[in-house]
Amino acid sequence: MLQLNELSLNIPDTTKPRVVVIGGGFGGVNLIKNLPSKEFQVVLFDRQNYHGFWPLLYQVATAGLEADAIAEPLRKMFDEEYEDFHFRQVKVTGINPESKTVTTLVGDLPYDYLVIATGTKSNYFGNDQIKEYSFPLKQIPDALNLRSQLLQSFEQANMIINPEVRQSLLNIVIVGGGPTGVELAGSLAEMRRHVLPNDYPGMDFSKMNIYLVEGLDRVLPPMSPESSAKTLEYLQDVGIQVKLNTLVESYDGKTVTFKGGEQIQSQTLIWAAGVSGAQVKGLPPEASERGRYLVNPYNQIIGFNDIFALGDVAAMKTEKWPKGHPGVAQPAIQQGKHLAKNLRKLVRQEPLEPFEYFDKGSLAIIGRNKAVADLPKNMHLSGFSAWVAWLFVHIYYLIGFRNKLVVLANWVYKFFTYENGTRLIIRPFIRKEDIAGQEFVRKQTDLD
Amino acid sequence: MLQLNELSLNIPDTTKPRVVVIGGGFGGVNLIKNLPSKEFQVVLFDRQNYHGFWPLLYQVATAGLEADAIAEPLRKMFDEEYEDFHFRQVKVTGINPESKTVTTLVGDLPYDYLVIATGTKSNYFGNDQIKEYSFPLKQIPDALNLRSQLLQSFEQANMIINPEVRQSLLNIVIVGGGPTGVELAGSLAEMRRHVLPNDYPGMDFSKMNIYLVEGLDRVLPPMSPESSAKTLEYLQDVGIQVKLNTLVESYDGKTVTFKGGEQIQSQTLIWAAGVSGAQVKGLPPEASERGRYLVNPYNQIIGFNDIFALGDVAAMKTEKWPKGHPGVAQPAIQQGKHLAKNLRKLVRQEPLEPFEYFDKGSLAIIGRNKAVADLPKNMHLSGFSAWVAWLFVHIYYLIGFRNKLVVLANWVYKFFTYENGTRLIIRPFIRKEDIAGQEFVRKQTDLD
Repeated sequence: MLQLNELSLNIPDTTKPRVVVIGGGFGGVNLIKNLPSKEFQVVLFDRQNYHGFWPLLYQVATAGLEADAIAEPLRKMFDEEYEDFHFRQVKVTGINPESKTVTTLVGDLPYDYLVIATGTKSNYFGNDQIKEYSFPLKQIPDALNLRSQLLQSFEQANMIINPEVRQSLLNIVIVGGGPTGVELAGSLAEMRRHVLPNDYPGMDFSKMNIYLVEGLDRVLPPMSPESSAKTLEYLQDVGIQVKLNTLVESYDGKTVTFKGGEQIQSQTLIWAAGVSGAQVKGLPPEASERGRYLVNPYNQIIGFNDIFALGDVAAMKTEKWPKGHPGVAQPAIQQGKHLAKNLRKLVRQEPLEPFEYFDKGSLAIIGRNKAVADLPKNMHLSGFSAWVAWLFVHIYYLIGFRNKLVVLANWVYKFFTYENGTRLIIRPFIRKEDIAGQEFVRKQTDLD
Repeated sequence: MLQLNELSLNIPDTTKPRVVVIGGGFGGVNLIKNLPSKEFQVVLFDRQNYHGFWPLLYQVATAGLEADAIAEPLRKMFDEEYEDFHFRQVKVTGINPESKTVTTLVGDLPYDYLVIATGTKSNYFGNDQIKEYSFPLKQIPDALNLRSQLLQSFEQANMIINPEVRQSLLNIVIVGGGPTGVELAGSLAEMRRHVLPNDYPGMDFSKMNIYLVEGLDRVLPPMSPESSAKTLEYLQDVGIQVKLNTLVESYDGKTVTFKGGEQIQSQTLIWAAGVSGAQVKGLPPEASERGRYLVNPYNQIIGFNDIFALGDVAAMKTEKWPKGHPGVAQPAIQQGKHLAKNLRKLVRQEPLEPFEYFDKGSLAIIGRNKAVADLPKNMHLSGFSAWVAWLFVHIYYLIGFRNKLVVLANWVYKFFTYENGTRLIIRPFIRKEDIAGQEFVRKQTDLD
């Protein structure tokens, strides 16, 4: 019931340079960790109050991990050690480079340095129908919603009269053969094999179809051809129907129509096909290309020396990476750390150091003992060794002691029992009353 | 996008007696565990797909535990061992004792024995305004919603201009001095002391007020006067403002008005004041008293020999318990187990055994080393010994190996670090766009 005009950003004045960071993802968080409070005042804006470990988001969707295990509250990450750090959970609506201010829903804030680390948003390529009916997998609420959708589909398939409608509940279509699509498909296949038959003893899960649809001619296009081929083999081994060179034309919530006319009846289309940079209003069009900010080797956006972009929303074109770095965690992490160094140099009027990406390789997991890895020096792993590597890398990078423990405990448990943990349908706010009679009285809170 | 008429309950025919159970709470679950599939077909209806350990729900609301730690999917609880068990996540709309059928949103089902184990729902005593603006704490979505409300209040208090409005965000009013209200208040006090000052270094949490409002003259009225007195002392020790003999007259989302005229400005009123039985339509009024079914010592509802009620929705009046058993987990658990025995006797036409409640005592926790326990034989514990007893009892009864481990790990971690774990604001579905600009595109799913 608060009004916007009752709120203000309430950031203390400072004589130190003020760094305003938009976005608490891998880039923003690694930048802030390396900006000493003695030298800078740091203000972070994010629409969520947590930093998410998005490479494991698909595990929340398939009920392998609880939501809280892959996220860490931003205020907990930056506690008393960061004396002059200020987090505000508020939406940024624009930038004004002339007045050097950021505009938010509750007021403006002047900056000395501005860092845009907003990551990506789902890209539906202008198809509003797909946007309306498909399930994205970008944020924690998306994953909880998809989990509930999948489990409710099985509950309802159990109660359906018409076999065609039942089949449409058991057809899961994943669009996008990148890491999210591949890992989600693999995780669903494990669920189909090891978990669902126990939960639904009367149902025939050989009728559950998992389609993985990719527009290009191979899965995991950013990885090596060897790893793509091995991944395709693994996907087919576990019974996933992979459709390469296939584009989705339309989806109305019931029927997926592919370019060329082929159709699949499905109640669940998961959109993991494309992302575009989550840009902020206010910079000239020539500073961007295809939704990403063009940055120089110091992460400065072209045309500005006090506005920076990091990670997925930035395109730093180099000889080795002519389209910019891949849209994964590592470039964002490394750029964040590097920019912290450069900001300190900038304040001391020392020359900046160009960023160099250290490619640690990439990994993807399809199932137990089924993983692929591209390592530096053109080495490729697959099978058990890649799977172990995947496990260790992900646990290592998960931020926060508690999360690591919970995730590790979950995985160990899962490994020995083939049992996923958290198959709760938590879907309170979706409608006034659903098939199960769940009611939600929409609360009048804050800004309504 | 499914239509109701596309669905059917789809329960296989059987020659065994069919037991239909409404509600997968403590009563229903303990009944079903003890009904052998060789002797009975068992059908369970619940609006959720999980069994919740509700005595710890307040911990989810105060971010001490994640939602998944206190719930267990019903299908996982009753797996292949229960061959002729059938769960349907669907709403029961009525009972027809003449035709011996249960009516659900997707069809009717004949029963041989019907067990109503629906528990309670919040009781607002007819005050629709309180119902609209207050926060209940009955289900997992309630707890997640309350958690988000509390955390958002602190985020916003940080950005507020008017000191009176800020104070209204920092005034938390809990109505109801029973176990839920007392334990929630204690948990909030621990958060205020040990967690929030780290998260919000610029804020003065001495201004955060936690009010606990009770209509009677003591907190924890079902416990012994000794324990009530000790609890009051503990609550005041940790800085909770306890208002006894106080009734809420009205609440409009901003102002709490008490009978007598006193007012408190508060954006968060938590309603833990009253519950009434969650009854099902179709039984004659004389079978109920104050929202609970009157049952004989065999849990048969008065006037029926094939319809039973269990736990909180039943009132079994005895000499020792003239108003029926207390509305906690133990009577429901014991009645469930006992009814399983009696149903087996009924089928064999053996005489039934009357239920006798074995009172194991009751426990409540206010904070670390601050707990109270009423034990059999008029023994009372408080302080550290009661606190240890509370810990062990709750871990012991938490159902499911994995949950126990996660909860235990969380508590151990919390004990040594004074650090609550999961302060995520997960509130996607509340409105189209909120202060943080979180968007939710309402999905058109199943029955819309």
